[in-house]
Amino acid sequence: MIVALAGGFGGAKMALGLYRVLSPGQLTVIVNTADDLTWYGLRVCPDLDTVMYTLAGLVNPKNGWGVRKESFHALGMLGHYGEPTWFQIGDKDLGVHLLRSKLLADGYTLTQATQELCRRLGINATVLPMCDEPVETKITTPEGVLSLQEYFVQREGRVKALSLRYDRIGNASLSEEVVRALHSASRIVVCPSNPLLSVGPILSVPGLRGILHSLACPIIAVSPIVGGKAIRGPLARMLVDLGYGATQVTIARQYADLVDGLIIDHQDAQEAPLVEALGVATLVTSTIMKGPASWEALARRALKFTPAVLPFQ
Amino acid sequence: MIVALAGGFGGAKMALGLYRVLSPGQLTVIVNTADDLTWYGLRVCPDLDTVMYTLAGLVNPKNGWGVRKESFHALGMLGHYGEPTWFQIGDKDLGVHLLRSKLLADGYTLTQATQELCRRLGINATVLPMCDEPVETKITTPEGVLSLQEYFVQREGRVKALSLRYDRIGNASLSEEVVRALHSASRIVVCPSNPLLSVGPILSVPGLRGILHSLACPIIAVSPIVGGKAIRGPLARMLVDLGYGATQVTIARQYADLVDGLIIDHQDAQEAPLVEALGVATLVTSTIMKGPASWEALARRALKFTPAVLPFQ
Repeated sequence: MIVALAGGFGGAKMALGLYRVLSPGQLTVIVNTADDLTWYGLRVCPDLDTVMYTLAGLVNPKNGWGVRKESFHALGMLGHYGEPTWFQIGDKDLGVHLLRSKLLADGYTLTQATQELCRRLGINATVLPMCDEPVETKITTPEGVLSLQEYFVQREGRVKALSLRYDRIGNASLSEEVVRALHSASRIVVCPSNPLLSVGPILSVPGLRGILHSLACPIIAVSPIVGGKAIRGPLARMLVDLGYGATQVTIARQYADLVDGLIIDHQDAQEAPLVEALGVATLVTSTIMKGPASWEALARRALKFTPAVLPFQ
Repeated sequence: MIVALAGGFGGAKMALGLYRVLSPGQLTVIVNTADDLTWYGLRVCPDLDTVMYTLAGLVNPKNGWGVRKESFHALGMLGHYGEPTWFQIGDKDLGVHLLRSKLLADGYTLTQATQELCRRLGINATVLPMCDEPVETKITTPEGVLSLQEYFVQREGRVKALSLRYDRIGNASLSEEVVRALHSASRIVVCPSNPLLSVGPILSVPGLRGILHSLACPIIAVSPIVGGKAIRGPLARMLVDLGYGATQVTIARQYADLVDGLIIDHQDAQEAPLVEALGVATLVTSTIMKGPASWEALARRALKFTPAVLPFQ
């Protein structure tokens, strides 16, 4: 069993690469839910949806989120009624939120609802929310405390992040399914998702770090930074805002106590010694995922990379 | 102030005729809510929506319900997930249900939520649900007890109705807004809606008949039956199933204790004496509404008809 920890865009593509090269049923993806929100009474789980849509072949390939060939007529009607429309929920996407919300209202946990949705989409992998309790990433900015969607979608990440926190993470708990998946893992892959906004919340669910420390299997991270930039999203800007550099050393520092190896892009080969000085072995390869061949190639490397045990210098 | 009692299709067209010939703000429409349902957690009010969409010029002119130029992508996605799709909720329509459900969750009564929706649509008439409490029409059939939507939409009214009831009508109460509208009415028009499924529930809200009896203003009904058939919907079939005839006499009997006059179509002129024998004055005219001129003509007749007081024979 391979366990991936993933957020949205990059995480979903990495998960898809793993899904394509592994046998059916061999992959479990533990997904960030700290971006989740309630939208007009419906439970919306952006990262879970992106992972599900990606594994099911439904994802909009251009955006990397939402459903392909999407329309926005319900949202347009809300706009006609004078409601804000910056949060782009498509019509097909709405179908999923309606069904998830109904399952939750019927007493399903988010874990159970997600498994039911995946089953109906014919996904032969296990997709698990990091926890069933609501957790909310909040970003303090000069404009006030924002939700992730307000920061990232409404303001397009253009406002300075002063600090961030995961609200209610103290109330979160590991589900049985997450615990079981981690204990049965032969390898754990931290996908190239945002370490602050996506992987950070997962690692902050009380008890999760402890389990990772206790496991004997290799834990490999794939860096989301290439050449000082994030492939997508506000990561690089946010790292700088928060006083980190957008470098492999920063990524390695985020994960140094947990991972055995970090996969970084050729463009950052010169940083490998600095990363290794933190006790994290490196594999230098192409980490840019464009098209199925590259997803699969990166997945194979993440599955085969056997990091040497390095001393922390 | 003119008050109309209305259901969906025929009621909405009659309301539109009245809206077009009256001054802005002069019309109040009290609408059946016994067809309302909860659909994937959203409150759906088919008759209120039909009236609102019709007055706002948004209605699908072909169906007489739903929004014009509608798409069904959210529903299609639910179908993709294996959910039933016989209840045709369109994407634009969904926008309204999302907003209404949010307003209700925020503590609005259905009356307040409806007024807010109408205000945002620029409707210069008052649209009131018959009550704020949920009431549900149930139809007993050989296939069991069905909701109105199961009977009318899922089975297309093709199953025999054995009896019907308005569940929880005993818990319904007149809103202040309905009471105020009725007391300020200079005329009440019972629209050509289904007397059993649409007007029946309105008249059954405890206290409403008492107020109608106490009012001095004329109460005029427009018959939904023309030549032994209903213009639309399961009315004629249902009347026969339940042992009534699909005749003007049946309609007059439903309303005889309340209305002063009944407007019937030329095709049924020969029934006028039978209706008048029940103490209900008649006006014979064209009641078929096809296009704005006919809506307005019928509205003008309903507003001008001054029925003679007839003895019950």
